[in-house]
Amino acid sequence: VQDVQNNPAGIPLAIDRVGVKGLRYPLLVQDRDQGHQHTIARVDLFVDLPAKFKGTHMSRFVEVLQDFSGILDYPNFKNLLREIRGRLQARRAHLSFGFPYFMPQRAPISASRSLMDYECTLNGELDAHDNLRMYLRVKVPTMTVCPCSLAIADNGAHSQRALVSINCRFHGMLWLEELIEIGQASASCPVYSLLKREDEKQVTEQAFDNACFVEDVVRNAANSLQGHKLIDWYLVEVESFESIHNHNAYACIESVAQRAKD
Amino acid sequence: VQDVQNNPAGIPLAIDRVGVKGLRYPLLVQDRDQGHQHTIARVDLFVDLPAKFKGTHMSRFVEVLQDFSGILDYPNFKNLLREIRGRLQARRAHLSFGFPYFMPQRAPISASRSLMDYECTLNGELDAHDNLRMYLRVKVPTMTVCPCSLAIADNGAHSQRALVSINCRFHGMLWLEELIEIGQASASCPVYSLLKREDEKQVTEQAFDNACFVEDVVRNAANSLQGHKLIDWYLVEVESFESIHNHNAYACIESVAQRAKD
Amino acid sequence: VQDVQNNPAGIPLAIDRVGVKGLRYPLLVQDRDQGHQHTIARVDLFVDLPAKFKGTHMSRFVEVLQDFSGILDYPNFKNLLREIRGRLQARRAHLSFGFPYFMPQRAPISASRSLMDYECTLNGELDAHDNLRMYLRVKVPTMTVCPCSLAIADNGAHSQRALVSINCRFHGMLWLEELIEIGQASASCPVYSLLKREDEKQVTEQAFDNACFVEDVVRNAANSLQGHKLIDWYLVEVESFESIHNHNAYACIESVAQRAKD
Amino acid sequence: VQDVQNNPAGIPLAIDRVGVKGLRYPLLVQDRDQGHQHTIARVDLFVDLPAKFKGTHMSRFVEVLQDFSGILDYPNFKNLLREIRGRLQARRAHLSFGFPYFMPQRAPISASRSLMDYECTLNGELDAHDNLRMYLRVKVPTMTVCPCSLAIADNGAHSQRALVSINCRFHGMLWLEELIEIGQASASCPVYSLLKREDEKQVTEQAFDNACFVEDVVRNAANSLQGHKLIDWYLVEVESFESIHNHNAYACIESVAQRAKD
Repeated sequence: VQDVQNNPAGIPLAIDRVGVKGLRYPLLVQDRDQGHQHTIARVDLFVDLPAKFKGTHMSRFVEVLQDFSGILDYPNFKNLLREIRGRLQARRAHLSFGFPYFMPQRAPISASRSLMDYECTLNGELDAHDNLRMYLRVKVPTMTVCPCSLAIADNGAHSQRALVSINCRFHGMLWLEELIEIGQASASCPVYSLLKREDEKQVTEQAFDNACFVEDVVRNAANSLQGHKLIDWYLVEVESFESIHNHNAYACIESVAQRAKD
Repeated sequence: VQDVQNNPAGIPLAIDRVGVKGLRYPLLVQDRDQGHQHTIARVDLFVDLPAKFKGTHMSRFVEVLQDFSGILDYPNFKNLLREIRGRLQARRAHLSFGFPYFMPQRAPISASRSLMDYECTLNGELDAHDNLRMYLRVKVPTMTVCPCSLAIADNGAHSQRALVSINCRFHGMLWLEELIEIGQASASCPVYSLLKREDEKQVTEQAFDNACFVEDVVRNAANSLQGHKLIDWYLVEVESFESIHNHNAYACIESVAQRAKD
Repeated sequence: VQDVQNNPAGIPLAIDRVGVKGLRYPLLVQDRDQGHQHTIARVDLFVDLPAKFKGTHMSRFVEVLQDFSGILDYPNFKNLLREIRGRLQARRAHLSFGFPYFMPQRAPISASRSLMDYECTLNGELDAHDNLRMYLRVKVPTMTVCPCSLAIADNGAHSQRALVSINCRFHGMLWLEELIEIGQASASCPVYSLLKREDEKQVTEQAFDNACFVEDVVRNAANSLQGHKLIDWYLVEVESFESIHNHNAYACIESVAQRAKD
Repeated sequence: VQDVQNNPAGIPLAIDRVGVKGLRYPLLVQDRDQGHQHTIARVDLFVDLPAKFKGTHMSRFVEVLQDFSGILDYPNFKNLLREIRGRLQARRAHLSFGFPYFMPQRAPISASRSLMDYECTLNGELDAHDNLRMYLRVKVPTMTVCPCSLAIADNGAHSQRALVSINCRFHGMLWLEELIEIGQASASCPVYSLLKREDEKQVTEQAFDNACFVEDVVRNAANSLQGHKLIDWYLVEVESFESIHNHNAYACIESVAQRAKD
């Protein structure tokens, strides 16, 4: 049987990334408090392709994934990238897992426990010299109260849900929980799945005592990330679903430089 | 050349709806104030298929649409349905146009004018006896302030964007603007694209003076639709994107009976 | 502290459904072959609300869900509905879990095993007399080869992915796997995550030997559902993402009558 | 009335982009053949914010947009950016319009005319020295036939819709139509809204005579863009919705260097 992919390329241009996109796969991810938790990921797997080859072998990406235990920790993640790079005879391999992650929250007064979900993405690229660059992204829903509305209205102020998205390049063991907590602490108030009457009172008052523009939220988050020892680069984005409009307020800060870390 | 579609069906079951889905087409829709406005629709075109035929002729749906002037008024809409029913040799034809529609809003104090967009859908079904059933749906973004939060908090109350979706079967000339206005009037406050400082003060205060649960909003809208002379059936749904949670509050009312209308 | 929700309604209209929408929650669902599998659901929880009450108590829905073990079987599902109905002092309770479900597939020649995911929804409504109506929906990706293109072209025929969506009301123990298998068997060929060269050859040839319009696919599925002992009503929809167009072909059949079942 | 935004920032960090996101606005865009066409855009408007200011003035972005004629040509686009930069007292302004664009296509044999829509985005950034960087992106649906499947199967080959996404930085007058045509010419065959029987035969045969991996498609497109006089940088991405799988094949090429142009 003919191996069409190994034919010479018609147009000899190197391809930056080629592979499979949008596979779903069950994962066991590391949980700071409980050891691990089950989730379901959307997976992308890519390699580079030199100018001389017509095509890559798409089924090998899927084989590598199907052989993967689904236990997502640092050694397995790096092995998976090595496996892809090797099986595809490539110089670079790229891997992305996007998944919902649950972190229990305690309501502020009643201490009622409930699960909140956060969209997370773990991204990695392994080069020919075995250097691994890893990126973690979390999307943290929060609440903002508008300082301007609060200052000018005789009564009340508009509030809304706002999504704080933190993407960072990191080294070492960075917990999802740390990024989630940075996101939560940056806005007027965290959001919760379960709030009893006394909690709703507290959350409302806390948010109104801590009114924030998207500008404030993005700076608060950037400030926390700036000082983090495991984080080499970050991009924080905040999108606030303004309740008085049908459009959103947005702000972003990208860390300017790769800083030396201990 | 063989006409495969006219072969007998392998399994002689009647098909309720068959056709094309997700075509985009530019439209000129009727605007209460300006005569008409340009928009772009997502279009579905279906017919029924008797048990004896293997297939319908998909390209004819597209031909009918391409021949359509794009001017969406009652006679053209009915003619389009007749044309589909005829060209496809069917008993029933079904047609759906979904499109954004702009309605200018005036800010409450400064009277600054800005455009707000609303997702609208016009749906029609024409039967073998030329009876036409028409449905209009609008999605109206609004603002809600939580009455519970307002009652219990010493300061403030959480507010959020809420989407009021009104679907109705109607006869006669029902303006999109009428449904939009019903949606806007049902919640704590309408939302606007452009609000200056003095408007933001007014909108905040108005919303706080008119705190609404989703239950209140859905009842307000149902109450307005109940009395409307051109409306034969309705379904109102309200979804409020709670700013203290990452989930939504929801309520719906469907009109119970087809009422006789003058 | 005031209980605003128990105030009389301003407009005394009964509300069909009111509750929370879009919560996420981890589940353990029943798996025909392996006993169970972990997944993550999007959850809606609703009750009816009589005309006399101003509001329902949204936090109670979340409390009931947070107390739920997450083990999704018939007794737990019914108990959850009873719990909601009771805690919310309602006459009817409605519950919906939407989740991805994995079913391993064997490639046709190499027998390579890989996981395929299917979007599933379990829906239930419990009335005041403890009657439970249950609905199961699965979305099954498949492949279609166009019979018309095959008949008229000297070489080849266009093929594409097509989504078979089966929604049914059922009684007894209906496995997700049964509905998935009905969907897969209705089109030109199932789709797989992992196909080696010899499998790709087989899948291509099988699909070309079994060319299907959406009309054929929807009838094949309806025919299988029609005869199913546990199914009391069904709606099959097929949407084929035509590779020669940027729009889709669509067909649906709804079962006409509730049939008596043994 | 207090101007909260002009207060000093609590945390003096410069913000890269701040503004409004997701506004919709009607546009008149330039059409190579007809002069212009009506469309509806999703609009983002951002500026930078120096470290010393607490907030920007969100309503001014909307004011600038509402004052815009909607006629999207080069002078108006640059003026709009200048207006934003000036009104917001910023150093840099950023603007993005995303909109569907129609280009009529002729079926290859019958010459039947039909409208095809393409998702387009025009992006611009104006710096403090009045340098304008402009980006144009088009998403072009096409058809791919798998060369491997064609080589190994005794009969047929799988085909599918594939999306070619071209993003480029350009100078001068670059027509949307040029990018669309590059995308269409890169795959096995363009797709059409309306194909009669004789056209479907032709399209099928043409696609089968021109089987393409995503690797071929991305190189074909890159090759055309590489030589284009108005294009200073590009990123081509191809995503093919494999009909034998439920996941997609993907490839991308980013132009390596900013090349000197005439």
